[in-house]
Amino acid sequence: MAHTLAGRAETPTQSRILRLVRDEGPMSRVDLADRLAVSRTTVAAEVSRLVDLGLAEDAGPAASRGGRRSTMVDLDGRLRFVGIDVRATSVHVAVTDGRLTVLSRTSQPSDVRRGPELVLADALALTRKLLAEDGVERPAGVGIGLPGPVDFHAGVPVSPPIMPGWDGYPVRDALSRELGSPVLIDNDVNVMALGEQHNGVARGARDFLFVKIGTGIGCGIVVDGQLYRGADGCAGDIGHIGVAPSGPVCACGRVGCLEATFGGAALARDAAAAARDGRSEVLAARLAAEGGLRAEDVGEAVAQGDATARRLVVDGGRRVGSVLASLTSFFNPDLIVIGGGLSALGHPLLAEIRSVVYRQSLPLATGNLPVVLSELRDDAGVVGAARLISDAVYDAP
Amino acid sequence: MAHTLAGRAETPTQSRILRLVRDEGPMSRVDLADRLAVSRTTVAAEVSRLVDLGLAEDAGPAASRGGRRSTMVDLDGRLRFVGIDVRATSVHVAVTDGRLTVLSRTSQPSDVRRGPELVLADALALTRKLLAEDGVERPAGVGIGLPGPVDFHAGVPVSPPIMPGWDGYPVRDALSRELGSPVLIDNDVNVMALGEQHNGVARGARDFLFVKIGTGIGCGIVVDGQLYRGADGCAGDIGHIGVAPSGPVCACGRVGCLEATFGGAALARDAAAAARDGRSEVLAARLAAEGGLRAEDVGEAVAQGDATARRLVVDGGRRVGSVLASLTSFFNPDLIVIGGGLSALGHPLLAEIRSVVYRQSLPLATGNLPVVLSELRDDAGVVGAARLISDAVYDAP
Repeated sequence: MAHTLAGRAETPTQSRILRLVRDEGPMSRVDLADRLAVSRTTVAAEVSRLVDLGLAEDAGPAASRGGRRSTMVDLDGRLRFVGIDVRATSVHVAVTDGRLTVLSRTSQPSDVRRGPELVLADALALTRKLLAEDGVERPAGVGIGLPGPVDFHAGVPVSPPIMPGWDGYPVRDALSRELGSPVLIDNDVNVMALGEQHNGVARGARDFLFVKIGTGIGCGIVVDGQLYRGADGCAGDIGHIGVAPSGPVCACGRVGCLEATFGGAALARDAAAAARDGRSEVLAARLAAEGGLRAEDVGEAVAQGDATARRLVVDGGRRVGSVLASLTSFFNPDLIVIGGGLSALGHPLLAEIRSVVYRQSLPLATGNLPVVLSELRDDAGVVGAARLISDAVYDAP
Repeated sequence: MAHTLAGRAETPTQSRILRLVRDEGPMSRVDLADRLAVSRTTVAAEVSRLVDLGLAEDAGPAASRGGRRSTMVDLDGRLRFVGIDVRATSVHVAVTDGRLTVLSRTSQPSDVRRGPELVLADALALTRKLLAEDGVERPAGVGIGLPGPVDFHAGVPVSPPIMPGWDGYPVRDALSRELGSPVLIDNDVNVMALGEQHNGVARGARDFLFVKIGTGIGCGIVVDGQLYRGADGCAGDIGHIGVAPSGPVCACGRVGCLEATFGGAALARDAAAAARDGRSEVLAARLAAEGGLRAEDVGEAVAQGDATARRLVVDGGRRVGSVLASLTSFFNPDLIVIGGGLSALGHPLLAEIRSVVYRQSLPLATGNLPVVLSELRDDAGVVGAARLISDAVYDAP
């Protein structure tokens, strides 16, 4: 049963109906009228239009509150969004329903350095496969997160340090043409923050930070419930804050950036050095067996009680914690979420970050400040990407 | 000619009229209707109500655009706001008209550590003196900035490190009772940011930082044209970001905070040490003559070509610049304004801050980033405090 392309909300009242039903579930027309403080006639007319647009549907009679029976309104059950999460070395795709519940997901290795044509071809192939399995011809919208700076309004990456060939590539327009659906792109940490806000630990948070520690390090900033992108759209680029004046050279060309001292790439480098220097038998054994080390190997060495591996993680946590302590004094967030691949290092990392943030920031700013791991984990990016485009579809222009 | 208390705007249209006339000057009713996209009848009714409220007045016939002559609308010429800027060692008060032009100003030494009763008594005496000279019985509103963290919604200072006795003192309500006018309080850097945005170098800036380097160091944050206060109202507290792990002990009890290494108090301390150690003849001579040194003495020693004094300023600029470089990567502002007493150190300080920010932040974030001195200088606090309360008076509830 192919589903034709859904339209977009046309009026503020339609937007408010869609958001209420998305965030709180099916609702009776009577309750919608109460919640939105508009007449039942208005609700009836707007819902009818939303049904025509393929965005909402009737969902049976509501429980009686006395008087005439009301009808439940739900999002159209055939509504589908696609979230694409392009990472440094893999592409992840999910198809969601209108409420952004993940219905199916898939991923494959894909090195972002191969350039936009090949990586987007991978993303398209995965997307088409999932849509075909679901019997969907065209999704209502597609969101995509990229691991580098993005000019959100132009829909293109901007001088991404780890993504040669992507600078200025028309990602949004190219995907939109291929899929026939509206597309929005943003950087990976922004979409992860949106995902965590939609359905994770940041639900209800107002001014929060989502810190991704993956191959690189970045931060999504939410102000008053909305993504904050900064004057040039590159806010949150904390991976290049200087933390070690005599530290390693960073991919950006400067010395001692946070992500040159910690993050997946730095941790793999330091683990290999420790293995070769004879500081860790566990890491040396893994290096000999596998021919190389990844950040995951360090996590497993920690789990095996390796003191050197643990030291590497704690040192990294201290660096990240120190930057977050400064940002806490500056931004006074109500929540800090730690996500990205390295958050799988779990407690040793989180405990050190927390300890440094609490010790180095003013008590007033940390008295009610939870520092927690992402709940959505691997899904934060795809759910957030779907959320990004669903907001655009559900919002009246 | 005593002026009775002006009311507050009652409707969004009234607010928009007041803000337009405040920011752009007197405007004809016809132009107001065009700009607000409402009917001339609506403008006439709303202006008439604003006249009754003592907020607006007719300002003569407008130049003809053909057809019937329109009448100019201006803010009521008798409208007065008071801006109070409480600093660590002095109190400054200004009376402004409705457009926040300073009509008169005064100040006196007043040590904030003497506690709220004595300091607010000073502020009240100065305020009453200026109002009496202007023949104003009650101002339309009073804004006040305090040199410490403020719970904006409760109208009280919160655990201010340099202000013993102020914690929880009902500053807003006490002043409001004494003056019979609405009062709002905020911290000093927030009101300085508002002042600079209203009538200084940050006019038109959208996402900017106002960095005050006075006795202490703090930062006002503006997001999308609005003050950002953070989850607990203490956003911008950058004076306590750690910059020197083995540096001096800070008033807050921790080690190496930014304001323990630079700012008026730290600079005076370091200058006295340099004078005593024989590193600066100029500073030693001033110390002998005056019995103590202030930050201003360092500025004058720099002007006389003293290399040690210059070194102290440049070292301080480097510390501040390093923190601002991190914040630039994080926040991606469109402007950084440097204000507060030490901005009088001028070029040597600003040049070093700029150089470090440009060198240590990513090119994308600094490509269009001016780092400039405050234009309002000594008036930023009083104008911003007046702006704070005028926004409340001009805004419909």
